[in-house]
Formats: sequence, structure tokens, C-alpha cells
Amino acid sequence: MHISHRLIMDKENFSKHIELKNIEINDPFWSRIISLVRTEVIPYQYEAFHDRIEGAEKSYCVSNFKKAAKAAEAIREGKKLPIYPVDKWYYNEENSDENAFHGWVFQDSDFYKWIEAVGFSLSNHPDNELKKKAEEIIELICNAQLENGYINTYYTINNPSKAFTNIRDFHELYCFGHLVEGAVAYFNATGDRKLLDAACRYADLICETFGGDNGKKRAYPGHEITEMALVKLYDLTGEKKYLDEAKFFIDERGKKPCYFDVERNQETGEGDHTYEQAHLPVREQREAVGHAVRAVYLYSGMADIAKNYNDDELYSSCIGLWNNIENQKLYITGGIGATADGEAFSFDYDLPNDLAYAETCASIGLVFFARRMAEINPDSRFHNVAERALYNTILSGMAEDGKSFFYSNLLEVNPEACKKDSRKRYISPVRQKWFGCACCPPNLARIISSLGEYCFAQNDETVFINQYVGAKVKSENADFEIVSSYAVNGRVNIFINPQKPIKLALRIPEWCDGFEISNAYEIKDGYAYINIAEKSEIALDFKPKAKLIKCSNRVRANVGKAALSKGPFVYCIEEVDNGKNLQMLRVNPKGSFTEDGDIILADGFREKEDEKLYSEYQKADETPCKIKFIPYYRWANRGENEMTVYVRI
Amino acid sequence: MHISHRLIMDKENFSKHIELKNIEINDPFWSRIISLVRTEVIPYQYEAFHDRIEGAEKSYCVSNFKKAAKAAEAIREGKKLPIYPVDKWYYNEENSDENAFHGWVFQDSDFYKWIEAVGFSLSNHPDNELKKKAEEIIELICNAQLENGYINTYYTINNPSKAFTNIRDFHELYCFGHLVEGAVAYFNATGDRKLLDAACRYADLICETFGGDNGKKRAYPGHEITEMALVKLYDLTGEKKYLDEAKFFIDERGKKPCYFDVERNQETGEGDHTYEQAHLPVREQREAVGHAVRAVYLYSGMADIAKNYNDDELYSSCIGLWNNIENQKLYITGGIGATADGEAFSFDYDLPNDLAYAETCASIGLVFFARRMAEINPDSRFHNVAERALYNTILSGMAEDGKSFFYSNLLEVNPEACKKDSRKRYISPVRQKWFGCACCPPNLARIISSLGEYCFAQNDETVFINQYVGAKVKSENADFEIVSSYAVNGRVNIFINPQKPIKLALRIPEWCDGFEISNAYEIKDGYAYINIAEKSEIALDFKPKAKLIKCSNRVRANVGKAALSKGPFVYCIEEVDNGKNLQMLRVNPKGSFTEDGDIILADGFREKEDEKLYSEYQKADETPCKIKFIPYYRWANRGENEMTVYVRI
Repeated sequence: MHISHRLIMDKENFSKHIELKNIEINDPFWSRIISLVRTEVIPYQYEAFHDRIEGAEKSYCVSNFKKAAKAAEAIREGKKLPIYPVDKWYYNEENSDENAFHGWVFQDSDFYKWIEAVGFSLSNHPDNELKKKAEEIIELICNAQLENGYINTYYTINNPSKAFTNIRDFHELYCFGHLVEGAVAYFNATGDRKLLDAACRYADLICETFGGDNGKKRAYPGHEITEMALVKLYDLTGEKKYLDEAKFFIDERGKKPCYFDVERNQETGEGDHTYEQAHLPVREQREAVGHAVRAVYLYSGMADIAKNYNDDELYSSCIGLWNNIENQKLYITGGIGATADGEAFSFDYDLPNDLAYAETCASIGLVFFARRMAEINPDSRFHNVAERALYNTILSGMAEDGKSFFYSNLLEVNPEACKKDSRKRYISPVRQKWFGCACCPPNLARIISSLGEYCFAQNDETVFINQYVGAKVKSENADFEIVSSYAVNGRVNIFINPQKPIKLALRIPEWCDGFEISNAYEIKDGYAYINIAEKSEIALDFKPKAKLIKCSNRVRANVGKAALSKGPFVYCIEEVDNGKNLQMLRVNPKGSFTEDGDIILADGFREKEDEKLYSEYQKADETPCKIKFIPYYRWANRGENEMTVYVRI
Repeated sequence: MHISHRLIMDKENFSKHIELKNIEINDPFWSRIISLVRTEVIPYQYEAFHDRIEGAEKSYCVSNFKKAAKAAEAIREGKKLPIYPVDKWYYNEENSDENAFHGWVFQDSDFYKWIEAVGFSLSNHPDNELKKKAEEIIELICNAQLENGYINTYYTINNPSKAFTNIRDFHELYCFGHLVEGAVAYFNATGDRKLLDAACRYADLICETFGGDNGKKRAYPGHEITEMALVKLYDLTGEKKYLDEAKFFIDERGKKPCYFDVERNQETGEGDHTYEQAHLPVREQREAVGHAVRAVYLYSGMADIAKNYNDDELYSSCIGLWNNIENQKLYITGGIGATADGEAFSFDYDLPNDLAYAETCASIGLVFFARRMAEINPDSRFHNVAERALYNTILSGMAEDGKSFFYSNLLEVNPEACKKDSRKRYISPVRQKWFGCACCPPNLARIISSLGEYCFAQNDETVFINQYVGAKVKSENADFEIVSSYAVNGRVNIFINPQKPIKLALRIPEWCDGFEISNAYEIKDGYAYINIAEKSEIALDFKPKAKLIKCSNRVRANVGKAALSKGPFVYCIEEVDNGKNLQMLRVNPKGSFTEDGDIILADGFREKEDEKLYSEYQKADETPCKIKFIPYYRWANRGENEMTVYVRI
């Protein structure tokens, strides 16, 4: 399989994703999931931020915005406001005055992520009732906007004079970023400018407040996203200052003295800011470190800036960071972030299965990063990784009924350990209904609702098919239809009708050992390029087969083990199918694999349980057995039980 | 190999360890270590608690006792004392008035453990200079005693009126226990009553303060040791009330409402007291839980009381707890306590290698428990486990030069992980010079100085040889000499001269597959019994051989792996001998083992390092190699490097 290590940008071949409004997905695998998000997740979230879900932690989102609207009105009227503390990350009824802000400091983002998901969903699936709900939420948001454009319920309710005084921890710029992304998506879907105008007003305030000019704060987001959000706002409005502001945030990060120390009056500016990727100027960063979600959001913003400014130096940081993730820090499931401590990347090759973090949101962010990298440099490696994340960790984040979610996506779970071992208490052996810190479910909603953006890209000469999701698509130079059973059997038919002679670039999946393409093609950087001069039909067969995958022996947790994969899917075994003590199973690498739908039966052995804790070694007493594998994303849908991705060989 | 599961006490066959003064050790393996303790560890500790070790955390022990002596004098003179807070576990210069107590709340125990080690050492090795130092320390201790007998510098300095108000956490009864053990050992060695008298006065106060009678506190130690200390004091003085007090502490523990809640005015008494083994009445306990050192100190006290009161019911708890440790919770190295969280036992079969805790002190406590169990029921299983602990985890606790110590004794260490993975920051990849919480080095000093007590026991009819340590011994009915090269080649010669016909009971080590005994014998419960009517010589050969050991496949960390052992020693491999990435090595179970002194070379394979993080599984590309094993206790004597006990097979 081809792996390129192109270290500079392929400027002639920059591409851009095709907008959602031009994509109509109809896919035997994905349509059900997209529809679940529309019918289950989006309505559920709406109930959740109204605090109407019994047994779930409260969001307080609606009540915060209502309080902030009152405060905003009082400010306009010049009334004196009560002041509440702004020193805690989290407030609930017990530790806060009932009139003060409640929930997490970043709670506002729930609204914005929901609006974004709604926008994506409305792009292809008009729904007046949902639109009405969105308008109601947008009204709540706009009512909370101050005259200077500021929107943040935490500070507006508790103490507006403290705005922008804790940039490192208190997520104002993060919430702003999600507001912008929500506003852009909603405008793109509906043409309704109301939220977009509010976001632009706030963006103008951000540009006035933060920057390199005298009197501005030389700060940058504690939790990144702002950077890529500002680029989206620039893309939509053409307002160059938004792009420049994003570049400022990128360039300023990690300079000494570190702003995060300066704002705490720690003048040396020598604190450890690895967690926020502010340990080094970004152009010097080559190792993916710190909070994994923040990291990939930052790297996505860096890629945006590199592309927009033709900045090869910045790109070389991006590719260095990408290489580090792909080659040293990526779980086979597309998960990233190997440690719960700081929800962070661990060191190279430290990829424990039973102590993974692998946050759903981090894999979503990795897909953001992948798409941007592929749009700079059309090499299959980027969407190969995106595919790994999409079909495994990201899908695993949601239950098959769309009603419960994983925050962490472990590769090995023993429910007894999650209960009895404090090191594993962060691990939920079954999906939860909702989270107080509800970042993952809305993030899932927005990526699944916008899946098309990660599938298809274009430039003047080429249409790129990055993910084989069935859809009808209008690109600038061609209409095409993908009829795909890729997830089931690796077969895809493409019907394309170009307006001029173009190239069709088809990603050859990393897992594919031999493929058939009905037309003449040329391979470059992992894509098959086909010249399309007229209306054509292309048949693809990637021939997925069940095969064992070895993880590098640099990864201590996986020596002597293998994982099973087929096509884009990584498989796992569960106790419900294979009995307790999954570690006693061993797969026979010379055995056969029998497939039944998406289930794979492998030949293997089960060791007889040892009677003594220690005994002289002798060849294990094994009984041949069939080991039943299911796709990883489907695990934990049949109750609490043991699971493992890696099985001994 | 025989394993008995006798569930009741063997009352006819109770034995008692032979006192140190009747044992003169001369052993090619142990004498060097005992001498190191005398020449390095004991003098070092003396310097440490005078705070004269550069770069080491301060002990404050001498200065605390001096302050307490002043306070005691002021109290006698009716002067008003300044009051300092008694709410912190640890005070140092930064958070305490300079006249207040410094160091950990249990700091006094440093003196007592040192006195005990000195006592043991003086038993066989008179040393006037050392005796003078001990007398100086004893003087310091006695000067700090209040008129009612109370000795505890924390409360005496900071606020005497608060004595005995935080029994759960603040270690007064623990320090008292160590005082008693130190006083008993010192009296036994020297006949000097000064410290013993002080200890008895304090013991009298304890008996007046704690008990079931009206007006007494129904408390029991937060950190156990008091129980077995009081039994020792009873053994020495014959004062029954000390034994009864120990029984009270045992019987009261875990009753509802829990005293530890009551003293905090939590009247429900339903807090979780698993950490202190107060979650259940001890007679209902069958699972070893909580802080591992506390646990085995408690179980030792329970065994003492069971034996002294002929209490089969209590013994059945002891054997239940023993079974749980031996069969489900014991590392192959004799380590116990699988989690750093609470320095505690984890759940059954949860024995991670790279996240072990296996505190040196816990294995020492396990040897205390083992000896007591064997004295109740002469079954080899108890001293088999003691041997595992002594020759592996306990010895590993100290560097070969006696100058640095392990607190935790991991079975797999990757120094990079200890630095970069917060979950492993508690792990020191090399031994440290001293600890602020200096429990392990003095505990090592006292067990190694009193090794003889764990080797030989007696009753009216039988002399038991439990550990084959070379020594000249006087028992009540026989003098005997052990000439032992057990640690080197498994051979032992015993020269015995009985005063009447007796039996000699020789423990057959668990690891022994075939042995030779020069005389006629009968096997019972893992001991070979020989009738000795006259002066005799017995030659033993236990024929240790290198062999691979399999850990139960219930232990997830060890499936597909084996450990190497020879005789009492568990082996390990180090990076300095075998290169980096020890996980890439695999031992050939059909290969040969070549011995060179205590080094073993095994046939094995090294996998070629994988180039890609994920690739299709194929048979590993392996090169034959020799794998160099060294005894586990000798690891980390050649700088920081990777180590593992378990190697893939």
C-alpha cells in the first residue's frame, strides 16, 4: 500500500469539500444513522437543554440564556446587576445562587452545536417544525447578546466586567467558535441571517479585543476551535479580518511569556502549557500533545491558515503533527488520546487498550483535521485515517438506537474493573444517556449530519471521492451519483455527468489488497485518477476481506495479539457471544473466517481456566472453539459485558 | 506439591518462633544483607531523623521529640502552652509555625522502628556505640512522655487536649504499637527496662482509654499494628490486660455504628471503611481489602488472638483471608497490594505488572502474618509465601549497597512511562535515598535484623525449620546448626543435638520438584518430619532448577507470558542486559537454560521492530537470541532501565 510523505503543499491541487446543500445522501449503511441523528439525537438534545430529561444531569442551557437575556436588558437600561462569583468551572443548585449561572462554563456551546447539527440536517431534509425550534433557540441566543456584540451567559449573568479575564480556562473563545460554526451552518441551510449577523457582531468584538496591535490582548483560545470557526466565517462572508484574526491566534500561541501565565500575573510565563498546546510556538510543534480534542481542533485551524496563506512552513508543522498522530499515537479504531489524565495524548506508542481515553470528540476533530490536510495535499492517507475514525470510534460513540453515548471508547473493557479499580472509574462499560459535560453527543450529531462534507471534494479539474457514501452530488463541473454498498461488500457504482472534461479521483482504501475499477486509471498518492470526458459509469470493487491486523511491537499492550478487520471496520469480541474471561481466547491465524452478515466467526482456542495462581509452565490446555467477532462500533448494545479488540494469537 | 486447606487450628501442634538471642546467623546469602542493614541502613536512618542527609526529605523526628519534651515539662509545671492546629496529616516548614510539630503525623514511629531494628541487631551483634545512640534516642522518647503515660509528639506539641480525637487518621495507636514493638525488642536484646517501662505506662493509659467498659472509647486503630504489639507486650510481661486489650481492638473493629464515623459525629456510622478493614466485623471478613499494610498487620493481630484464645472462629477468618491473598491477590514476587489508590488490594486476580503497588512494607507484613499462621497450623504454605516475599519483593526493596530503597516493587517498569504517564508517576524506576514518609527502609531494617524469628520455631516436641538460613540455634530441646547454601544451590546440612527425643520438621519448598533427605522422614502438610533421638546430621538437597512459571489465566496481564524462577528466586530481565523494548522478546519454552552464578541465559527470540503502526498480521520476523535473566531482587542496581518479570512465550 502506498504511503506518501509529501512534506510541502500540493498547491496546484488544492481542493475544497462540496457543500452539503449539493449532496443528497442515500446510503444503505449511513442513511439509517443520519436518520437516527435527525429523529432521535437532535430532538433529545432539545429536550436535554431544556432540562426535561428525567435522570439526566441538567444542562441549564435554556435557563442560562434566559437569565443572560434579562441581564443584557438590565445592562442596556443602565441598571445595576447583582454580582456572582466567576471562579468555578461548574455550578449547580447546591453551589450557586439560583439567579446565577448554572452548569459548566462552556454550557452555551450546547446550543451552538445543536444549531449547527440542525443546520446540517435542514440542508437536505427540510423540516418546518425543527426550523421553528431552531428559530426559538436563535431568539434566545440573540436576546443574550450585549450591545458590544458579546455573547456568553456565564459572564453576562455572573459578572460582565470579568469578560475575557480567564481565557485559558473559561472557554469564551471556544463558545464563540461554536456560535460561529452554528451560525454558518444554519445560514448555509436556510439563508436566515439572524444568527449569522449576531455571530459577526461578536466576531467583530473578538477582532477588536484580541490581536497584535497596541491595546489588544495577545491571547489565544484556551480550548481551540475559534481558529477554524473564523476561517469558516471568512469563507462565507469574505471578510478578510476574520481570517487574519484566526492567523493571529495561530501565530501567537506558545510564544513566551505565555499569555496564560500573564493573565494570572505569573510574569515569568514559564508554566507548563502542554495541555493547551501552548508549550511551543505552533511552527515548532511536531509532537501531538495535551488535550486531544483541543489539539486536533488547533491542527485543523493551522491547516486552514496554511492553505489560505500558502504557508508551507506552517504546513510542515501540520504534516509533522499528522505524522506523529498517524504513526505513533493512533488507535486502530481511529481513537486518539491515550490517557484520561487531561483527556490527552500520551507518549509515542503508549496505546493501552483498557486505559484508553479515545474520546468520541477527539476522533471527530481528527476527521476535521484529515479533511483539511487532504484538501491541501490529496493523499489517501488522510481520508484513510478519517475512515478509521468514522467507521469505528465515532460510530461507537452512539448506541444503535441513538439514545445513549460513549464519551471514551476503550479497546478493552472488563466491567468488574470499571467498578472496582479506581484507575478505571472514568470508564463507562455501557453507553450513558447524557452527560453533564455533553460535548460528545452534539458533536456526533453535527459530524453525522454533515457527513457529506467529509466524502466529496472538488477543484477546477478534479472531483475527489474520499468516502464511498451513497449520494447524489452536484459539483461545480459535474453531477454524479454514488450507489454504494461499500460498508457491506466494498462495491460502488458511480454515475457521472461532467460539464467539461474532468478527472475523477477515487481514494483506494488503505485496507484494500486488490481492487477492480471498470475504467482506465492512474494511481497517484493513493488515489485512482480517471479521465472523465463524458457521461460515464464506473464500477468499483474494493473486495474487503476479513484479516488479522498486527499492531507495531513498539506498542507494549499489543504484542502477541492481533485485531480483526474487514473493510473499514475494526472488529471486537464480546462476552455475550464468547463467554467470560476473553483473555483466555486465542485466535488461530491459520484458521478460517466465516462471515454471516457483519458477524465473523474465526477459528480459535479457549484455554482451560487455571486452578492455581502459579504453576510450572506447560503448554496451555486449549479447546478449539469458534470466536465470534462483531464490528467494534456495535459493541455494548446488548448490556454490560467484557469486550476486547485485540485477541491473542 | 501438597497444598492443605486445613480450616481449623492444629492446637496440639502450636509452635512459637525461637527468640533472636538464641539464633546466630551465618549464611552465605543473608549475612551480607544483615550486615548491610547494620552498617548502612541503621546508621543512615539515625542521620535521617536528625535531618542530616543532604537532598533527602526531612524527618523532623529528633526536633519533634525535643519540642514535645519541652511541652511535657511545661505541662508538668502547669504552664499554659501555645496551641497549634491538629487538622493536617503533614506539616512542613511551609505550613506550620516553627515551634509546632513538623513532618507526618506518624513521624514518631521512625524512632520506634529504628529502636526495634537496633534491638534486633544488638541481639547477636553487641555494639556499644550503637547502644549509646539508642540510649540517647530512648532518653528523647522518655522525656516526651506525659505524666499519664501518653507519648505522641504531634498532639503533645500542638494541642494535648486533642489526644485520641482522630483515631482513624492520625496514627496515635499506630505509633504506640511501634513504640511497644521497639521497647520489647530493645529489652529482649539488652535487658534495659527504661523504654519498656515507658511503653507499659503508655499501654496502661491505652487500656484505661479504650475498651468496652462504660466511659471508655469503643475505638480501634485506624492503622493497625497495636494489636500484635500488645500481644508481644503480654508475651513479655505476662500482663493479661494487654492481651485482652488487643482482643478488644480485634473484636470491636467493623461493628456498626463504625467508630470512625462516630468520632466525626456521622451518626449513621455507614461510611465506607474498607480502606481500614473496618467495613465488616473481622469475624465476617473473608476478602483481603483496603490498605495492604494495614490489612496484613490486622490479620497478624487476629492470628495472635485466635491462637492465644483458642478461637477457631477467628482463625477461620484468618484462613479465609490468607486463602484470598495466596490464591487471588499475590504477586509471584510475594508482593501484595495491586493498586496505588489507597496503597491497597485490588479485586481478585487483578494483578497488573506495570501498575502494581506491592509496597515493601506490605510484603513484610505478609511475612508477619505467615509466621503467625504457621505457628497455629504447621503447613508449609505459609512459609512458602513468606519465602516468596523475603527473597523477592522484600529484598528488592533495598539496593545492593543498602543505600537506596523501593517503596513500590513493580513487576514491569518502563522509565519513559514513569515520567510521561501520570498514572505511573508514583513509580520510581530507580530506588530512592529516603522518603519523607519513611516507612519502608526502617521496616526493612527491622525484618532483616530479625530474620531468625521467621526461620525457626519450636514446641514441646518439634523443632521447625521454616527458612533454610545458615545459623547456630539453641531451642528449648535441642541445639542445632544449619549450614546452608540454600539460596545458591538448595543444599542444607543440619547438625542437631537434642536434649530429649524430638521431631525435626523441615519445610519442603513449594518450588521443589524432587528432593533428597539423608534420613528417614514422613511428610505432613508440606513438612518432612524426622525423628531425632540423638545427635544427628541431616543432609538436604532441594535441587533448585530454572523453570518457567505460568500465572493463572484469570490474571489478564499475564496470559501468553511466563516468568522464570529458580529456587526461592523469581527472575526478571533488564534493558541493560537485553536492550530496549523488552516486550519484543519471547522466551522459548522448549529451549535450554544456562546458569552462570545467579544469572540464567534462556533461549529466546527477538522480534524485529515493526515499521508500521498497523499492518496485516504475519508470523513475527524473529531472530533467535539469548535472554539474560537476573534475580528480581537485584534489578535497578545498574541505573534506570526497562525491566519485566513476565516475558512472552
